[in-house]
Amino acid sequence: MEGEKDGRERFREVYQVLKMELLQDPAFEYDHVSRQWLHQMLDYNVPAGKMNRGLSVIESYRLLNDGKQIPEDAIFRAFVLGWCIQWLVGCVLVLDDILDSSHTRRGQPCWFRLPKVGMIAVNDGILLWNHIHRILRKHFRDQPYYADLLDLFNEVEFQTACGEMIDLITTLEGEKDLLKYTPTLHRRISQYKTAYGTFYLPFACALLMLGEKLNDYDDVKDILLEMGIYFQVQDDYLDCFGDPEKSGKIGSDIEDFKCSWLVVKALEVSNEEQKKLLLDNYGKADPANVGAVKSLYEDLNLQGIFVEYEIDVYEKLTISIEALPGKAVQAVLKSYMSKIFKRQK
Amino acid sequence: MEGEKDGRERFREVYQVLKMELLQDPAFEYDHVSRQWLHQMLDYNVPAGKMNRGLSVIESYRLLNDGKQIPEDAIFRAFVLGWCIQWLVGCVLVLDDILDSSHTRRGQPCWFRLPKVGMIAVNDGILLWNHIHRILRKHFRDQPYYADLLDLFNEVEFQTACGEMIDLITTLEGEKDLLKYTPTLHRRISQYKTAYGTFYLPFACALLMLGEKLNDYDDVKDILLEMGIYFQVQDDYLDCFGDPEKSGKIGSDIEDFKCSWLVVKALEVSNEEQKKLLLDNYGKADPANVGAVKSLYEDLNLQGIFVEYEIDVYEKLTISIEALPGKAVQAVLKSYMSKIFKRQK
Repeated sequence: MEGEKDGRERFREVYQVLKMELLQDPAFEYDHVSRQWLHQMLDYNVPAGKMNRGLSVIESYRLLNDGKQIPEDAIFRAFVLGWCIQWLVGCVLVLDDILDSSHTRRGQPCWFRLPKVGMIAVNDGILLWNHIHRILRKHFRDQPYYADLLDLFNEVEFQTACGEMIDLITTLEGEKDLLKYTPTLHRRISQYKTAYGTFYLPFACALLMLGEKLNDYDDVKDILLEMGIYFQVQDDYLDCFGDPEKSGKIGSDIEDFKCSWLVVKALEVSNEEQKKLLLDNYGKADPANVGAVKSLYEDLNLQGIFVEYEIDVYEKLTISIEALPGKAVQAVLKSYMSKIFKRQK
Repeated sequence: MEGEKDGRERFREVYQVLKMELLQDPAFEYDHVSRQWLHQMLDYNVPAGKMNRGLSVIESYRLLNDGKQIPEDAIFRAFVLGWCIQWLVGCVLVLDDILDSSHTRRGQPCWFRLPKVGMIAVNDGILLWNHIHRILRKHFRDQPYYADLLDLFNEVEFQTACGEMIDLITTLEGEKDLLKYTPTLHRRISQYKTAYGTFYLPFACALLMLGEKLNDYDDVKDILLEMGIYFQVQDDYLDCFGDPEKSGKIGSDIEDFKCSWLVVKALEVSNEEQKKLLLDNYGKADPANVGAVKSLYEDLNLQGIFVEYEIDVYEKLTISIEALPGKAVQAVLKSYMSKIFKRQK
C-alpha cells in the first residue's frame, strides 16, 4: 500500500508502545531501579531474533481477510498479538537457556550469564510470562473473544511447559537407557515444546481476531503441528551442523544428552558397533566425547539424510496444504513454509 | 453442620480430584514417566504447609454469605479456588527457594535440592503456574465472572513477580549501599511479594463468587495489604528468631543480604559503631559474620521491639477493621487476623 511503512518497522514501533505501557503499569509502583531493570531486561530478550512468529499474526490476518481493507485499530491489535508471541518466545528462551546451561543466544551471552543477572533470570522469565497477560488485558479486554484469547495463550503456555518437562525428564531417563530415544518420543517433545507456540499460536490468534471458532480448524492445526515438528528437527540439525555465526548460538545437545533428531536418526541407522560408540560418548561434556559423536554423525551421513528428510517433508506438507479447502488458508500455510524451508538460522 | 465432614478433610479430597484431572488433561498426552513425575512433583509441593490461604476462600465465602445455605457446587468451587491459591503458593515457593539458594522447606529438602530435580524445578514452577489456569478453565469457564477471575489471578501473579523482582535486585543494589534498606522499601517488597497473594487474593476470590465488584472493596483491600505486610514482617522475624522445627525451614536472610524487617529496624536503632558492624558483616555466608549480625540483633533487643510492633499493628488493624461498614466483612478480616497474630510458623 502506498505510503504504508514497512511492516517490520511498524511492528518495532508497537514494541516501543507496549514497553512504555508496561513501564507505567499502574498495578505496580515502579521506582527508578526497578524500571531500569525491566527496561533493560525487555530490550535484551524480547525484540531480538527473526521475529517471524510475531509478524505472522498480521500476515495471517491479511491473507485470511481476503484482501479486504483492514481498519487501523485491527492492524495495531494484530501487531500487539504478534508481540505477545514474541514475549512468549523471549520467556521460553530465557528459561530454556538456564535449563540447558547454554552460553550464547542470538549472538550475545544468554541473559542469565550476565554477572549481575544470574538466577534472577528465573524471575525475569516469569515476569515476561505475566506481561503477556498484562498486554492482553490492556488491549483486548473489550473484545468479544477476550476469554478465548486468554484460554488460547494459557493452553499453549501449558503445552510448551509440558514439552519442556518431557524434554528434561527424558534426559534423566536417557542416562539409563539411550535406546528410549525413539522417533515417537522425539515427535512428542517437538510437538509440545515447539509446534504449538511457534506455528499454531500465531494462526489461532488471527482466527480469533476474525471471529472464527478454533475448533473449526482442526485439520489446519494438524498441518501446523507437523510444520512445527519439522522446525524442531531443523533446530536439532543446526545445533550440531549450523553456523554459530548465523544462528547466534553454540549448540550443546550432545553434551546435554538431548533427545535430538540427530541422535534418534543415528540410533536408527547405526550398526551394533556404532551404537556402542554412541552409548559410550553421548551426553558427556568432554570435547573428546563430543567429537566422537560428531564424527559418527558424519560417518553415518546424517547431513545427507537430513537433506532428504527436508525435501520429503516439504513435499508431504505441500500435498496436505493443497488438499485443504480455502485458498486463503492455503496461502497462510505456504507462506509459513516458505519462511522455514532450508533455513540456516 | 451435622454430618458435614471437617472442612480441612473435604478440602484435601478436592486436591485429589484436581490432581487426577490434571494427570488426565487432554491438552497434553502423558506417558507413564511424565505422569509419574507430575504426580510426585504435585504431592511434594502443593498440599503442604498450613493451607490457611486455601481454606480462607470458603471461610470468607461463608461469612460474606451471611449464614445463608450454600449449594454443594458452590462449596466445591470455593475449595477449587482455595487450591488455585495453594498452587500459586507452591509455585512461588519452588521458585523462591531456587532464587534464595534455600535448603529446606516445610521440614524437607527444597524441591530443587532433590538430586534428580535440580534446575528442572524451574520448569516445574512454571507448570504449577499453568495448572492454575487449567483448573480455572475446567471449573469456571461457564461462570459469568470467568474473565474477572482470570484477570484477578493474572494481576496478583504479576504483582507477586514484581515484588520478587525488587526483592532480588534490591539485594544487588544493597551490596553497594546497605543504607538503601529503608522502611519504605521494605513495605514495598512485602506488599507486592506477599500481601496481594496471601491476603487479598482469597478475599477477592470469595467476592467474585458472590457476584461482587472488586472495585467496591478498595478500603478492605488496603487493610488486607497492611495485614500482608505484617505477615511478611513475621516471616522476616521468624527467619532469624523462629524455631526451624516449627517453621520447617532454615533462614538465610542475613547471608542473602535480604532487605528484611530486622536489618531495616537494626539500621534505624543502631549507633554509628553498630551500623559499621552491620555493614561489615551483613550479607556474608561465613557463620562468623552471620553470628556477629545475630548478636547485634540481640544487643539491639530486636526481639522486644518486634513484640511491641506486633501489639501495635494488632491494635491499629483492629481499629481499621471495626471502622469498616458491614459486620460480615469485619468478621472475615478478624478471622484472618486471628490466624496470624503471634504465629510461630
